[in-house]
Amino acid sequence: MRPSGRQPDEMRPVSFTRHFTRHAEGSVLVEFGDTRVLCNATIEPRVPPWLKGKGKGWVTAEYSMLPRSTHDRMAREAARGKLGGRTMEIQRLIGRALRAVVDMEALGERQIIIDCDVIQADGGTRTASISGAYVALRDAVAHGRETGLLKKDPLHGYLAAVSVGIFNGSAVLDLDYDEDSSAETDMNLVMNEAGGVIEIQGTAEGHAFRRDELDTMLDIGEKGIGTIIDAQRAVLGEG
Amino acid sequence: MRPSGRQPDEMRPVSFTRHFTRHAEGSVLVEFGDTRVLCNATIEPRVPPWLKGKGKGWVTAEYSMLPRSTHDRMAREAARGKLGGRTMEIQRLIGRALRAVVDMEALGERQIIIDCDVIQADGGTRTASISGAYVALRDAVAHGRETGLLKKDPLHGYLAAVSVGIFNGSAVLDLDYDEDSSAETDMNLVMNEAGGVIEIQGTAEGHAFRRDELDTMLDIGEKGIGTIIDAQRAVLGEG
Amino acid sequence: MRPSGRQPDEMRPVSFTRHFTRHAEGSVLVEFGDTRVLCNATIEPRVPPWLKGKGKGWVTAEYSMLPRSTHDRMAREAARGKLGGRTMEIQRLIGRALRAVVDMEALGERQIIIDCDVIQADGGTRTASISGAYVALRDAVAHGRETGLLKKDPLHGYLAAVSVGIFNGSAVLDLDYDEDSSAETDMNLVMNEAGGVIEIQGTAEGHAFRRDELDTMLDIGEKGIGTIIDAQRAVLGEG
Amino acid sequence: MRPSGRQPDEMRPVSFTRHFTRHAEGSVLVEFGDTRVLCNATIEPRVPPWLKGKGKGWVTAEYSMLPRSTHDRMAREAARGKLGGRTMEIQRLIGRALRAVVDMEALGERQIIIDCDVIQADGGTRTASISGAYVALRDAVAHGRETGLLKKDPLHGYLAAVSVGIFNGSAVLDLDYDEDSSAETDMNLVMNEAGGVIEIQGTAEGHAFRRDELDTMLDIGEKGIGTIIDAQRAVLGEG
Amino acid sequence: MRPSGRQPDEMRPVSFTRHFTRHAEGSVLVEFGDTRVLCNATIEPRVPPWLKGKGKGWVTAEYSMLPRSTHDRMAREAARGKLGGRTMEIQRLIGRALRAVVDMEALGERQIIIDCDVIQADGGTRTASISGAYVALRDAVAHGRETGLLKKDPLHGYLAAVSVGIFNGSAVLDLDYDEDSSAETDMNLVMNEAGGVIEIQGTAEGHAFRRDELDTMLDIGEKGIGTIIDAQRAVLGEG
Amino acid sequence: MRPSGRQPDEMRPVSFTRHFTRHAEGSVLVEFGDTRVLCNATIEPRVPPWLKGKGKGWVTAEYSMLPRSTHDRMAREAARGKLGGRTMEIQRLIGRALRAVVDMEALGERQIIIDCDVIQADGGTRTASISGAYVALRDAVAHGRETGLLKKDPLHGYLAAVSVGIFNGSAVLDLDYDEDSSAETDMNLVMNEAGGVIEIQGTAEGHAFRRDELDTMLDIGEKGIGTIIDAQRAVLGEG
Repeated sequence: MRPSGRQPDEMRPVSFTRHFTRHAEGSVLVEFGDTRVLCNATIEPRVPPWLKGKGKGWVTAEYSMLPRSTHDRMAREAARGKLGGRTMEIQRLIGRALRAVVDMEALGERQIIIDCDVIQADGGTRTASISGAYVALRDAVAHGRETGLLKKDPLHGYLAAVSVGIFNGSAVLDLDYDEDSSAETDMNLVMNEAGGVIEIQGTAEGHAFRRDELDTMLDIGEKGIGTIIDAQRAVLGEG
Repeated sequence: MRPSGRQPDEMRPVSFTRHFTRHAEGSVLVEFGDTRVLCNATIEPRVPPWLKGKGKGWVTAEYSMLPRSTHDRMAREAARGKLGGRTMEIQRLIGRALRAVVDMEALGERQIIIDCDVIQADGGTRTASISGAYVALRDAVAHGRETGLLKKDPLHGYLAAVSVGIFNGSAVLDLDYDEDSSAETDMNLVMNEAGGVIEIQGTAEGHAFRRDELDTMLDIGEKGIGTIIDAQRAVLGEG
Repeated sequence: MRPSGRQPDEMRPVSFTRHFTRHAEGSVLVEFGDTRVLCNATIEPRVPPWLKGKGKGWVTAEYSMLPRSTHDRMAREAARGKLGGRTMEIQRLIGRALRAVVDMEALGERQIIIDCDVIQADGGTRTASISGAYVALRDAVAHGRETGLLKKDPLHGYLAAVSVGIFNGSAVLDLDYDEDSSAETDMNLVMNEAGGVIEIQGTAEGHAFRRDELDTMLDIGEKGIGTIIDAQRAVLGEG
Repeated sequence: MRPSGRQPDEMRPVSFTRHFTRHAEGSVLVEFGDTRVLCNATIEPRVPPWLKGKGKGWVTAEYSMLPRSTHDRMAREAARGKLGGRTMEIQRLIGRALRAVVDMEALGERQIIIDCDVIQADGGTRTASISGAYVALRDAVAHGRETGLLKKDPLHGYLAAVSVGIFNGSAVLDLDYDEDSSAETDMNLVMNEAGGVIEIQGTAEGHAFRRDELDTMLDIGEKGIGTIIDAQRAVLGEG
Repeated sequence: MRPSGRQPDEMRPVSFTRHFTRHAEGSVLVEFGDTRVLCNATIEPRVPPWLKGKGKGWVTAEYSMLPRSTHDRMAREAARGKLGGRTMEIQRLIGRALRAVVDMEALGERQIIIDCDVIQADGGTRTASISGAYVALRDAVAHGRETGLLKKDPLHGYLAAVSVGIFNGSAVLDLDYDEDSSAETDMNLVMNEAGGVIEIQGTAEGHAFRRDELDTMLDIGEKGIGTIIDAQRAVLGEG
Repeated sequence: MRPSGRQPDEMRPVSFTRHFTRHAEGSVLVEFGDTRVLCNATIEPRVPPWLKGKGKGWVTAEYSMLPRSTHDRMAREAARGKLGGRTMEIQRLIGRALRAVVDMEALGERQIIIDCDVIQADGGTRTASISGAYVALRDAVAHGRETGLLKKDPLHGYLAAVSVGIFNGSAVLDLDYDEDSSAETDMNLVMNEAGGVIEIQGTAEGHAFRRDELDTMLDIGEKGIGTIIDAQRAVLGEG
């Protein structure tokens, strides 16, 4: 039995609130149960130095947890003067995942930055971030299309992320904090709407996992991705 | 005429939402019009090194703006590796103001940290932060009293902050961004419920201001403080 | 009674020594009693990035205390690798104050940096710094006029700063360290020769202060500003 | 066809040179073709602060590339003053992988640090690092056992890592730099000698990959892991 | 001919002003011609971590140039967030030199820090710093003896430093900035009153120098050291 | 007697291995007994900012010790976020020494960086680094000549470095770690093939040394330099 009483392949309630703040081109509050992340997308008329003059754009992400998004207060990375390894790892993952659905030539020489700030954490902040960032990216692109900044649509397909794991010997979907902190295996999946894998990151925290366990996790993960993409379609009015 | 159509001595709508997130001992979303700041209060069982063994507590604050709380995206201070001067100045101000209403002996050897994270900015983020931080502090103290952590109430009196300024030659209350960015004088006031001044910080951006202008600003500021403290009382059920 | 035996509205001896070092365009040692600050003004043929190409100049300041300017040795900020909040706050104040008397168009695309290095501290280092920086700025501008660098005079009016406070229940002028460390209220005033307020920063360290206390502090502060400006006039040969 | 002329499931020559330097408890130069990494293991009589007093040990890793291990010179992270995201990600991966085969209670309150310094890079530096670090760890543990520092053997089982990917539409094993830089999918696998998965990290650089492609990559990866573990056994005299 | 008209083996006027500031245990302004350095010595009741519990003391130094001590303004190291290589090299040299005349057991578990802050630079700031730091150290030790902090005198012998070099083909003593910036060889000597060498650091900026040139430089350097030690004796009333 | 049984004026075995890694223009492993340093030379088509547009080149060096090159593990400077004073001092020395034999006009507007990474330390890492860096520099220059990058040879003469010291009262050559850590005086000499001194840095760790001791050290140092230059000639095929 899961602490939350959910079925092994059952997602927490998923919701996306668009236009959560007013300044960003795309601003989405994503909720996976009690995990809440604010994803703001910004279009900037510049690219990183190594891309200058190549006629291509870039998509990148930054991730941060508010100090009291967690049960115990975490020191602010700005106060410590540097980003931690976990933060770097997550923001690299978010950026890489999003770039998989963007045509950089169509973007032109501009950069989209997605800021993912965790307001409240209860497990799965990185998968919620990616799933919410996708919606914010869609809104930013729509804004760029309306204002004439973008001549063509640089996005191809949907994208979502979900965690799966082995908890008490069984494969489970979308782990919350209670499960996450004692899971034997923790795996994050980023997939598109056709079931193609964009990123897979799995770690055995306890015993090494077998191929058949991997298969079960991939099966329920694919189901979860479908649920999230349905929610994305609905909020974007494309359902 | 003010851009917002407000009267010179009229506040923007002020609201406080308690229990905005679930982990912090005190968690308040404060809104002054479109300015929204999340104030989370944490009680920690330790004090800064220079206070150890003195039987007294401490109250401090940290302030940060989400990168896209502003019209143009601001670089994240954690990514730049250091806090800017404006951030330091503001968080020092918030902490100093709150300490004015706390009895450090009654707090015992523990520290309360108030994290003020600006979700959306439209002028007056520091005064909204102080006003919201006070409510979060109240909730954190109440939590400490209920759990038996605090033997007596360390708080004495109410506290709020508001900005005043000279805009188009007239004294105005609670400047929004449009006014703030072109005001001739900008002044922040922190006061208690008896009209005592806890902090005054005024800067002439254009011409130096006269004593009579200062008096008018203080008069309307005192009125604004009253309005905010009324809202604090209401949300705390003490109205 | 004040520890120094001074009258409540009596300044410490104020002196300015011009040409204290030989390399800077303006080099002034300012003394407010035992507080000694070396203020060096440098004219540089460049402006900060955000001002480039706008035909305007800039004035900024840096402030530092020698490690043993104080009773106990303070760690060097260069060794700790970052500026403290107090330093940032003070150097922002000095720069802002000086900019209030400079016509940036007349300065052209060049920057004046005023370095204020505290040789010996006995309270009031920031107000001594501003008052001394003004004289160094005057000398640097005169140098720029003589060498033909500046086509017209960018300075308008005099500028000085002084601290006032409530000590043992009475308003006092120009607090030294003994008073400063136990004052109930500490306020810094920057004013021009016409009595216009350029900056006011007051903090209640003990009880909140009343409007009538504020008025008395402003009265004696204005008197102190007059004394300092007289000394500036004298050393500049304009008395 | 692969640039190197290798078969799709063919490893580069793998070698381990033990006792490469004389000071470290374990010192191994690992070579996967032209990729050469020096792995030094150090046993320290202390644990990270959060583990103190719990009777358990810790294993961690640090990773660095010599500036000219790569075709173009990379700036030194020590000179830039901070670790890059890629470095953090890799050293976190190495440490996590090694911890999967160590019994922390058996280690006692001591820490083993594995330094992986890339002398020459030609793709697969992280998988070579993990595979070499395992041998260095074995030597360090043997040293600890001989000197009586470790009462029992904290290691259980073998561990190796290899990369797989999709190159020109086919699954290939142990990508070198030429393949790595143009692969459509890049995946790192850490496995034990029983074929259990300890870590899987796969990224679609081009199109999203399908479940059947994932299966093929896992098949050849498992074969590669076997080859590396055979080489480890041989050099450790356990073949 | 030297730019200053001095003889090859002629020092600039050397002076030491004791008690230059009032807080430090030893405070000396040293002048070698137009080079002016403030040397403040502080006795602290602690030692570096690696010396704790060994019953021995330590002497260390910090060196800094005021931004406008030089002809062009130098950026402040505190603002840049790190010490430059030249600063580190010089402060390591000053500390090492002073330690050569201090008995660490006699000092007990306390540290003397000498802060050398260059007020005005005209060549030879490191040799002036060492020579002045010695006098400040003497005053700090005397203060420690008077207050009973130090049971016995930890100092043995005199210490001074001077620069020598090859300028226009001739060996010269105590180079000023004009000579220093175009010298073919620049050498710093630290010696005791018996002519023993404590430190020698020589660099050929132009052609490599010969043994006979080295001998001549050592001869005039020894003469200069004698002159400086005479001035130290005089100001300390031991002449 | 020396711990190693060597004669006072006897070098450890000296060897240079060229082409140690494949990417750098010059790559040399230098060994002075058990001290092993990898010296990689890189030619970059750019110069430091202050040299731009002057038609001249630059030579600089970076130095680092692998964490376990030493008996006890040293913390990585990249992890601590800054270079230590010793590292800065050494890399400044290496760069300065090499520049003494390079004609910057002949180099043109390009920079040669020599990375000296200590693989294993047993005393004398800085002198081994300089001696090895010279050979790497020669190879990089030869590569630049072959590829047509360099129109003429910017190098003039040979260069080597060696340490000398006073150990147990006698002057000794090329100190290993055992001697170095207890020597009374430690001196590093950089000389050319004609016996000209390029750099001399000597420190009395115990008693100040006399002129006759300095002379003896210089004599045996010159002999050691000869031995190293012979080995350089041999490995470069110029013997």
